[in-house]
Amino acid sequence: MSLDENWFSEPAQGHALSLDINQKLYEEKSPHQTITIYETKTFGRLMTLDGLTMLTSRDNFIYHEMMSHPALYNHPNPKDVAIVGGGDCGTLKEVLKHETVKEVTQIELDERVTRVSEQYFPELCESNSDPRASLVFEDAISWIQGVEPDSLDVVIIDISDPAGQAKRLFQVPFYRDCLNALRKGGIVVAQSKSPLLDLQVIIDLRADMQKADYVQIQTIQFPVATYPSGWWTATMARKGQKFGDFREQMARHKPFDTKYYNADIHKACSALPQFMQDAF
Amino acid sequence: MSLDENWFSEPAQGHALSLDINQKLYEEKSPHQTITIYETKTFGRLMTLDGLTMLTSRDNFIYHEMMSHPALYNHPNPKDVAIVGGGDCGTLKEVLKHETVKEVTQIELDERVTRVSEQYFPELCESNSDPRASLVFEDAISWIQGVEPDSLDVVIIDISDPAGQAKRLFQVPFYRDCLNALRKGGIVVAQSKSPLLDLQVIIDLRADMQKADYVQIQTIQFPVATYPSGWWTATMARKGQKFGDFREQMARHKPFDTKYYNADIHKACSALPQFMQDAF
Repeated sequence: MSLDENWFSEPAQGHALSLDINQKLYEEKSPHQTITIYETKTFGRLMTLDGLTMLTSRDNFIYHEMMSHPALYNHPNPKDVAIVGGGDCGTLKEVLKHETVKEVTQIELDERVTRVSEQYFPELCESNSDPRASLVFEDAISWIQGVEPDSLDVVIIDISDPAGQAKRLFQVPFYRDCLNALRKGGIVVAQSKSPLLDLQVIIDLRADMQKADYVQIQTIQFPVATYPSGWWTATMARKGQKFGDFREQMARHKPFDTKYYNADIHKACSALPQFMQDAF
Repeated sequence: MSLDENWFSEPAQGHALSLDINQKLYEEKSPHQTITIYETKTFGRLMTLDGLTMLTSRDNFIYHEMMSHPALYNHPNPKDVAIVGGGDCGTLKEVLKHETVKEVTQIELDERVTRVSEQYFPELCESNSDPRASLVFEDAISWIQGVEPDSLDVVIIDISDPAGQAKRLFQVPFYRDCLNALRKGGIVVAQSKSPLLDLQVIIDLRADMQKADYVQIQTIQFPVATYPSGWWTATMARKGQKFGDFREQMARHKPFDTKYYNADIHKACSALPQFMQDAF
C-alpha cells in the first residue's frame, strides 16, 4: 500500500519513516533552511529542517537525554559545557539539570530554529532563561576557535547530518579545535547516525577523532523511532585520559527526572553488537 | 512528500515504516494468510503475512539472535527446546548453533510459511535438516498440551502480533501450558512488541506470565529497523527459580558466529529505560 499526502515521509537509503499528519502548523524559509512544524496524529509536534526530521514531541527525550547524560556522568565534575547546534534547546535543558554545571553555551547557526522551537516546543525551552545558559547564534567553528584553551569540560555536537554546511563540524580540524578548548579529561560527544544504515560514517567519525589526538573513543547506541532505521548512535572521545568509571552513584541518585536515561542504561549503552565490535 | 506505489508500507498507530521495492517476487493465499515476498532495493528480500512485515534479509539477524541466545545462555544446560511459530526458521537456525541442544521442535501452524521461506530465505533454513530438528505443522496449543510435563528447557514464542489466531498464544492458559511442559529452571520467552508504541501490551504480557506462576519475569530490548518504531522487546519468564547469572564465559567464547548477540549485549539488553522501569 502507498501512503497518501497526509503523511510526512523521510526516505533514506531505500527505507522510509513516515508520520501521519493532522496539519502543517508553520513553515518559514530562514536564511539557512526551511523550518517546518507539523502536528502529527500520534507523535505530537514534528520539526523538520529542509525535509529532514529533527524531533517529535513524543520521542525526542531519548535523543536529548542520551546526547547529554552519558557524557556528563562520564566526567568527574563537568562545569563548563558547550553545545554545538542543538537549536531546539532540548539538549540544553538536559545539561542544565546537572548541578555541577556552571555555564553552558549553545552555539546554533540559525537563530530561527531556536525561536520557532520556543514557540512550538516550549517544554524544551523552559530552561533557556537559566542564568547559567548563553545562547549564541553564530558559526561554531569561529566560536570554538575563539574559546580560551583548556576552558571546557564537555562539548556536545548536536547537529544534523554530516552534509552541506554541517560537514565541517564532522572533520578532524573541528575535533582538534574542540580538543584545544577542552580541559584535560574533557569529553567531546557527537551524534553519529545509524549503526544499520551508516556504519561507515561511524567508522570514519571514530577515525577522525583518533586523528585529532583524543585518547579513547566510545560509541553508544540508543533507539530513536523517528530517525532513519529507528536506531542511533553518539560517539564520545576523551582528552588526555581514558574514560574509566562513570559517576555511578551520582547517576543512580540523580536529583532530577529522566524518561530514558538511568544508571543501568548508562552501563548498557556502550555494549556494542558484534558487527560493530568487528568493524571497530 | 508522499511515497509512491513502489514502496511497501506498514502503518501502525500513526507511524509507518516503508521499504523501496524492486519487485514482488511471490504471493500466495495459504489456508491461513496471504504470504508475500518482495525484493527490496536495499534490505534484500522482505516477507509479509497479511501485509505485516515478518522479516527482511538485511535485519532479521537481530530479532532471531535476540529471541534465542539470551534465553539459551540464561539456562544452565538447555537440551530440549520448542519454538512456537517461527515458520521462517531463522530462530531454529540460531537455537541449533548451541551444542547443548539435543532436540528442537518448531510448531508452526502454516506449513506454507516454512516452504516459502525455504525457497526465498534459504540462508535461514540451512539447518532444517539437522537431525536434532523436528518441524511440526499444527496448532501450538494442542501440541504443548500433548507434551510430557517437565520435559522442555526453553520455549520460544516467535509469533506475530497478539491479534487474531495468535491471540490465544499470548494468554495465561497458554503460558501455564508452557509452564507445565517446562522442567524446573526452564525458560519461556515471547516477542513482546515495541516499548514506545505498545507499552501496555508489554505490561499485560508480564502480568499474564506472573499469573501463570512463573517465578521471575525479565524484558529485554533490541532494535529491529523494520518493525514498528524500529525498537522491539522480548519477555522471558522462569519456572521455579530466579534467573541468576547467565553462562557468561560460555557466551564470551561461544563456538559459533553471531552478528548482533555477544556477552556484552547479553548483559546490556535487560537494562531498561526509566519509563519502562517506572511502568513495571
